[in-house]
Amino acid sequence: MSKTIEFYFDVGSPASYLAWSQLPAIAERTGASLVYKPMLLGGVFMATGNSSPATVPAKGAYSRIDMQRYANRYGVTLNQNPFFPINTLQLMRAVTAYQDTPKFEPLLTAIFNAMWISELNMGEPAVIGKVLVEAGFDPEEVMAKASDPAVKEQLKRATEEAIGRGIFGAPTCFVDGEMFFGQDRLDWIEAAARS
Amino acid sequence: MSKTIEFYFDVGSPASYLAWSQLPAIAERTGASLVYKPMLLGGVFMATGNSSPATVPAKGAYSRIDMQRYANRYGVTLNQNPFFPINTLQLMRAVTAYQDTPKFEPLLTAIFNAMWISELNMGEPAVIGKVLVEAGFDPEEVMAKASDPAVKEQLKRATEEAIGRGIFGAPTCFVDGEMFFGQDRLDWIEAAARS
Repeated sequence: MSKTIEFYFDVGSPASYLAWSQLPAIAERTGASLVYKPMLLGGVFMATGNSSPATVPAKGAYSRIDMQRYANRYGVTLNQNPFFPINTLQLMRAVTAYQDTPKFEPLLTAIFNAMWISELNMGEPAVIGKVLVEAGFDPEEVMAKASDPAVKEQLKRATEEAIGRGIFGAPTCFVDGEMFFGQDRLDWIEAAARS
Repeated sequence: MSKTIEFYFDVGSPASYLAWSQLPAIAERTGASLVYKPMLLGGVFMATGNSSPATVPAKGAYSRIDMQRYANRYGVTLNQNPFFPINTLQLMRAVTAYQDTPKFEPLLTAIFNAMWISELNMGEPAVIGKVLVEAGFDPEEVMAKASDPAVKEQLKRATEEAIGRGIFGAPTCFVDGEMFFGQDRLDWIEAAARS
């Protein structure tokens, strides 16, 4: 019986970007299904009392080196976004609006790449608009969907669900109820998805 | 040319215990020299603004599961010490006092095992005394050495040196200037020690 990998993420998290870059291949290798679970990391931090490693300068500095090592191991580009941390509320609402649609993956790809390869200020509506147009989206349509009260409520509930499951940071994956925090647990996730 | 693994640790850190259980074998496999660097984790936390994962309840709960997974992978016993967190000032002074002596490794082994296998309250002088006797030490002699002003100063300087090198938590290893934080970076440490 094939397993399910639930992937809780926020596009403002470089570790989420790294995990996102590898999880589809892990799902393919293991035959597991990959379920994307957008959540608002700021909400998770607020509810749990956790904070970004970047709030401790020495930890933030090391964390950048550490993530770069993993990016090199994975063979993906990771650039340090100079506008980090970026408020991702609008972006995560947009991502939520397109969940379970064929446009979800192109949208997520455009946002993650803009954030962690092109180092754009994705907290700025004009910048977001440009990225969306280049990815073949109509920015007005995306932003209208993102402002839908049902979508706002959906992201809020998803974030509350994440907190209820014991999540305190991003990325976090569940494989059949087993929780794995961090992009540095992909080997454990792959083993759990395979077993 | 053989490399050096510098191992910064505090006996009050379960992740330090896990790294300590594996590093001698890594040094042997890679031909690297292992240099023990006792430091006071409480001092590191205070200076850097960092704190134990246990201060965020959801993170502490996950961290216990995560470390147990690694303990199982390594084939070592790790028990959750009910007295955690324990003030390790006296213990780390004692460990510092025996650095570069033949009694260093037996002392460290006795303390780490008392803390993370036997789950003893190693903040209590009477408990420490019993553990020392069982390990073949004279507790009065150990405590006299630990109270030597030169030893106190040595631990203080070692902790300041650690902070100066960018350390924010334990365990942290350096392999030829490259820093690796966490017992979950042993594969990276082994690769760096071998290269």
